[in-house]
Amino acid sequence: MTSLVADIGGTNTRVALAEGPGLMPDTVRRYRNADHADLTDVLTDYLREAGSPEIAGACAALAGPVRHGRGRLTNLDWTIEEAAIARVSGTPRVKLLNDLAAQGHALDQLAPEALVPVLDGPAQPGATRLVIGIGTGFNAAAVHALPGGLMVGEAEAGQVSLPVADAEALSLAQFLAGADGFAAVEEALSGRGLGRLYDWASAGAGRPGATDARAVMAALDTDPEALRAAETFVRLLGTVAGDLALQHLPYGGIYLIGGMARAVTPHAGPMGFAGTFRRKGRFSALMAEFRVSTVIDDFAALTGCASFLARTE
Amino acid sequence: MTSLVADIGGTNTRVALAEGPGLMPDTVRRYRNADHADLTDVLTDYLREAGSPEIAGACAALAGPVRHGRGRLTNLDWTIEEAAIARVSGTPRVKLLNDLAAQGHALDQLAPEALVPVLDGPAQPGATRLVIGIGTGFNAAAVHALPGGLMVGEAEAGQVSLPVADAEALSLAQFLAGADGFAAVEEALSGRGLGRLYDWASAGAGRPGATDARAVMAALDTDPEALRAAETFVRLLGTVAGDLALQHLPYGGIYLIGGMARAVTPHAGPMGFAGTFRRKGRFSALMAEFRVSTVIDDFAALTGCASFLARTE
Repeated sequence: MTSLVADIGGTNTRVALAEGPGLMPDTVRRYRNADHADLTDVLTDYLREAGSPEIAGACAALAGPVRHGRGRLTNLDWTIEEAAIARVSGTPRVKLLNDLAAQGHALDQLAPEALVPVLDGPAQPGATRLVIGIGTGFNAAAVHALPGGLMVGEAEAGQVSLPVADAEALSLAQFLAGADGFAAVEEALSGRGLGRLYDWASAGAGRPGATDARAVMAALDTDPEALRAAETFVRLLGTVAGDLALQHLPYGGIYLIGGMARAVTPHAGPMGFAGTFRRKGRFSALMAEFRVSTVIDDFAALTGCASFLARTE
Repeated sequence: MTSLVADIGGTNTRVALAEGPGLMPDTVRRYRNADHADLTDVLTDYLREAGSPEIAGACAALAGPVRHGRGRLTNLDWTIEEAAIARVSGTPRVKLLNDLAAQGHALDQLAPEALVPVLDGPAQPGATRLVIGIGTGFNAAAVHALPGGLMVGEAEAGQVSLPVADAEALSLAQFLAGADGFAAVEEALSGRGLGRLYDWASAGAGRPGATDARAVMAALDTDPEALRAAETFVRLLGTVAGDLALQHLPYGGIYLIGGMARAVTPHAGPMGFAGTFRRKGRFSALMAEFRVSTVIDDFAALTGCASFLARTE
């Protein structure tokens, strides 16, 4: 059974074919969203270029909320509907997934080399797992293995209170807070967030600054404020990931995904991720139960779409 | 089918009989744990007093973690095992549940008068619900309706970072923090927590204080520090419940349970629960989607045990 899978980001959309739960890597194509009117336009182009294969199911992952067969992207003016995908792909078996849910459905298919260890720990087969996405935004999804397949929870985990442990962190939260005085996790732990951490670190040093995440990560060796911003990011990520672990008890492991997760992973050890992850008072010992890894498979959302379709055949 | 159900707290154990999912209220008996060697001793007494009925299933809820058919109470030196309950009740169908999970399994059986409204909002049938327990400790459990029955998540939600929004809250977190500088939600939002909030409020006013939750709640009209402690409790509870709502998106409603939840519910409106629950920056509008109620049915954990057994027949 050949299925059509797609991963729709804010800038690019990737499309591929899959056989059962297996993504066919040679079939992956990338499209710039700006060159297309909408997703059906992208899929029509893809299917024509692929020689109009017969499609028995289609699944698309998108970076935004999905409800009642409709999805909306945060940073792109496309409305994505299962009915429209059914029309262009010629199959009534169509599913839209939130991209974090798609990553959750991919966990059982990931090759060992797709995982970079961050913190060691036991990972019990069949236990709850947790996917934490850190990229344009921040979110988390608990993945439960049930008799009928995986169940992936929904959340807006990037919108909860940014943790504050000391006066410096409070000054950061107040710097990041909106008009109502509330600072959300995502204001710090996202690509944009790292830029704002740099602004905060620079202002503290009397130097005005405004830069993007890529520039901050490139300047760690030369710019003390960039280093301070990245260290603050990593240490906050430890605290937030630890809080999420206590909220979901993912004895099956924690999986960091997204561009910012990949960017900071090499620095997680030296910058103190473990220290803040495990600083939980009398529950500190429990934190050693949670293995943390970063997923570096760029096609994982596509794999998750294929896996979801294969499980629900 | 008659089943045996029990709710084991730190001080008392309640035992009852149920027919299918229906608890038989006339059969509820309460036992002081201090007067008994262990749970099997309590159950043996109960069954003898009840005339040794034939038991087709047994389920006990306890305030502590349950793993692999074994439970441990936080504040009582009893180990509770399914095998031992099977021995005294004469049935192999035995299940131990965490008390919060039992409360989750009771939600579909609660009478309308068992719920006191805290915040109005739509409650979608079939959507995820969230139980938040505030009593001796603090915890939360997401309740998912699946085709095969309810699935109740596990958490240590009382052990996550206490939210800090301003300098006053930071002074509180530092007052509550342990040796590693970490302050958990449960250090403030529990019976003991309210006592410590009073200590904090009193120290700030130059008055030494140490009191328990019941005394604080009784002194709201006469002691400004008690009032400040209770207001701080309610406003923190709003922030924490709002964060939990974003972590689980309980469009089916939020249910507060436990002695401290019941104690502060009449004060939730005047003391500003809604304000902190909904203060979530650009996600403030979403917070109106979540209905919040307090469960005042003291037998809900027993009902949940009966409901669990009936669903897994």
